[in-house]
Amino acid sequence: MAENRETGTLIGSDKVEGTAVYGADREKIGSIERVMIDKMSGKVSYAVLSFGGFLGIGDDHYPLPWNSLKYDTNLGGYVTGITEAQLKGAPKYANDDAWNWSDGARSRAIDDYYAA
Amino acid sequence: MAENRETGTLIGSDKVEGTAVYGADREKIGSIERVMIDKMSGKVSYAVLSFGGFLGIGDDHYPLPWNSLKYDTNLGGYVTGITEAQLKGAPKYANDDAWNWSDGARSRAIDDYYAA
Repeated sequence: MAENRETGTLIGSDKVEGTAVYGADREKIGSIERVMIDKMSGKVSYAVLSFGGFLGIGDDHYPLPWNSLKYDTNLGGYVTGITEAQLKGAPKYANDDAWNWSDGARSRAIDDYYAA
Repeated sequence: MAENRETGTLIGSDKVEGTAVYGADREKIGSIERVMIDKMSGKVSYAVLSFGGFLGIGDDHYPLPWNSLKYDTNLGGYVTGITEAQLKGAPKYANDDAWNWSDGARSRAIDDYYAA
């Protein structure tokens, strides 16, 4: 079944969810909670990175631009060039009620933050 | 939380999974099991439509081109112009082991079938 949900070119949404995310230093920094899909274009815009709280940062959720993640077959997860220092000041939310994707300013804040 | 996973323009992958799919006649034909994301482009290529077997067709899985689905806010689900007759001859699989997304011929078969 795992094979069925992922190939060299395609990956199932339910396979992406829960996949580990590693920093540039190959240390695991969290896992993907969900991806946000643009309804019109059908493109994945953001991945929500979730911490289990094991870094002492608490159960925080960081929306990342999808293109900031590259899949690494050896690690079996996504690698991001985003550093821990960058994450500390990044847009985040503590629980689902505390973020509103309808607010365009929030999406722009993500784009701007990681483009900088 | 539901609001957080969907806006006018964005939808969370975990919200898409399980969402109902309706035929052109507004009758429910199944629900989305997962979407398949193209790793390189980040675009959703296919949605796997799953029947609960309640139509007597059994627990079958139909990969559909993502662009064959349009979200209908009134129905709270996706509407497709694909007819039941079309589905009967469409590419499908009975269980996850019986489909190989790595096989390019299978993806082309989906594209060709619904383009026809």
